[in-house]
Amino acid sequence: MGLPGLATFIVNGAPKYGAVTDAGIVDLSARFAKEYPTLREVIAAGALTKLADEGARHPPDYALDAIKWQPPIASPEKIICIGVNYPDRNAEYKDGQDAPKYPSMFMRTLRSFVGHNTPLVRPRASAQLDYEGELVLVIGKSGRHIRESDALDHIAAVTLCNEGTIRDWVRHAKFNVTQGKNFDSTGSLGPWLVPFTDESQIADIRLTTKVNSETRQDDRTGRLIFGFRYLINYLSTFTTLVPGDVIVTGTPTGAGARFDPPRYLKPGDVVEVEAEGVGVLKNGVIDEA
Amino acid sequence: MGLPGLATFIVNGAPKYGAVTDAGIVDLSARFAKEYPTLREVIAAGALTKLADEGARHPPDYALDAIKWQPPIASPEKIICIGVNYPDRNAEYKDGQDAPKYPSMFMRTLRSFVGHNTPLVRPRASAQLDYEGELVLVIGKSGRHIRESDALDHIAAVTLCNEGTIRDWVRHAKFNVTQGKNFDSTGSLGPWLVPFTDESQIADIRLTTKVNSETRQDDRTGRLIFGFRYLINYLSTFTTLVPGDVIVTGTPTGAGARFDPPRYLKPGDVVEVEAEGVGVLKNGVIDEA
Repeated sequence: MGLPGLATFIVNGAPKYGAVTDAGIVDLSARFAKEYPTLREVIAAGALTKLADEGARHPPDYALDAIKWQPPIASPEKIICIGVNYPDRNAEYKDGQDAPKYPSMFMRTLRSFVGHNTPLVRPRASAQLDYEGELVLVIGKSGRHIRESDALDHIAAVTLCNEGTIRDWVRHAKFNVTQGKNFDSTGSLGPWLVPFTDESQIADIRLTTKVNSETRQDDRTGRLIFGFRYLINYLSTFTTLVPGDVIVTGTPTGAGARFDPPRYLKPGDVVEVEAEGVGVLKNGVIDEA
Repeated sequence: MGLPGLATFIVNGAPKYGAVTDAGIVDLSARFAKEYPTLREVIAAGALTKLADEGARHPPDYALDAIKWQPPIASPEKIICIGVNYPDRNAEYKDGQDAPKYPSMFMRTLRSFVGHNTPLVRPRASAQLDYEGELVLVIGKSGRHIRESDALDHIAAVTLCNEGTIRDWVRHAKFNVTQGKNFDSTGSLGPWLVPFTDESQIADIRLTTKVNSETRQDDRTGRLIFGFRYLINYLSTFTTLVPGDVIVTGTPTGAGARFDPPRYLKPGDVVEVEAEGVGVLKNGVIDEA
C-alpha cells in the first residue's frame, strides 16, 4: 500500500480519526480536529491526501488492537446502495425479467452499519442474516448533473462494505427492500478510507467475500453492469451529491441466499470482504441481546 | 389552536427556530440556542411543550412573511416514508395483488424537501411531478422493540408532508422507488411542529390535499391500513428510533397519477396539504433552473 488509509475510531469512549499504518494508528484528530472535526470535513476540504501524507510521517499513537473501529464517515448525509449490479445477479431473481435499464437502489441508515472488527448483529426478528461484499465510493466534491466525463473528480476515497441483509424482511413489502436492509448493526463499512487518486484503483479490481475463510463471492469491478462513472452521473440527476456521501456499488453473485439450501450467517462466523488495494473488512457475528 | 407551532426558518441567512403565532414569529433560538441548537435538541430534551408555552408569552420578533420557512427538523437522522397506507391505494396499482401484510416503506433525504411557502421544483428530468399529502409523526424518545401500547409515548410532535414524487422515476428500477422519491426540493415538510399531547390529535383527523383550491385528496387518519401505534412498533423492530426521526405515514387516494389522463403539477400551481389541528402546508411549483 502507498498512502496509509484513514480511519474513524473510538479510544476510551472518545471519537477520533487517524492514519492506519502497519505499526499502529497515528492520531490525526489530535492534530487537526479544530480545523476538521471529522473525516467528513477533511474530505469536504479536499485534505484527505494531505492528511494521509501527514499520517505517514509520524509514529503511531495507538496499537491497532487498542481502538474500536467505526464506519469511516461519522455522519454521512446519505448512504445510497445499488442493487443487482454484477452479471448473473439479475438472473438470480428467476423472475424472467430482462436485465434492468436503470439501476435499482435504496438507502441505509448509518446505524445499520458497524465498523471493522466489530460483530454484525443477527436480530431477534430473523435468522436470515446474509452477507454482501461491495466496493464503496465516498464523494469528495458536491455536484448535480455531473457528466460521466467529470464523475471521477467527485470521488474522494474508496472503502468497503458488507451490505448485510435480513433476507425475509426485504420481501415484507409490496415494493422496496428498506426494512431488510436497515436492521441495526447488520452491515459494516470500512476498514478505512483509501484516498482516491487514479481510475486504476477502482476500474477493474478483484472483490471477494469469504465466510470462515471459504470464498463465497469473487468478481471484478470491471464487470459492473452500471459502472462508477454512470452511477455518479445517474444519481446526480436527482440528488445533489455532497462530500461524505457513501455510494455502495453492488454485490457479486454468491450471497448466502443464493445457495440451495441458503447459507445464512450465524453467531461465531467470520466474514471478510476484500478488494485489491483497499484492504480487508472483517466482522464476526453475534446474536442480538 | 392551543399552543403555538414551532418552526425552523431562516432570517438574513441565519437559521433559527421559533413559535408561530397569529401575530408573527417569536424567536426562541435567540433565547434557547445555547441549550438547544435546533428543534431536534429541543425534542431530545423533552422541551417542546415548554418552548411552545414560552413562545405564547412573548410578542413576535418577525412578521410571518419576513422569514424563509425550512423543514421543521434541520437534520433528522432518518426520514422514513410509508407507502400504500390508505384504503383504495393498493387497488390503484391494479396488479391483482391482495392487500399487503406489512407496510411498504422507503427513505428520503432531507434535501428532497423544502419548507412551507417555498416552491417545489419540477426537475429537468421529468414533467411528472406529483403531490401526496401526508400526516407526519416526529419521534421524541429513543426506542427499539417499542410495544404498540407504549408507542404514543415516543411521539414528540405532528406535522405535514407533501411527499412530492417524480412518477416515471419511481418505476426506473426493478425494485425500489428511491430515485423518484428523492429529487432535490420536490417535496415539503411543515409548516411547523405541533407538540403531541393526546391521541385524539391524530387518531381520526381529516387530511386533505388541494391543488389550485380544488380538493384532490380527502380522507381520515382513522382509516389508515397500518395505524400509528403499529408503525412505531414495526419500524422499531429493525431500527432504533431516535429524537427527530420523521415518519411520513402515507397518502390517501387521489394523487395526480391516479387520474386518466394524469394531472401532474406544473409551474404556477399551488398545493395545500391540510390536517385538522395541525395546519396548512402550502407550496407553489417552479421549474428547475
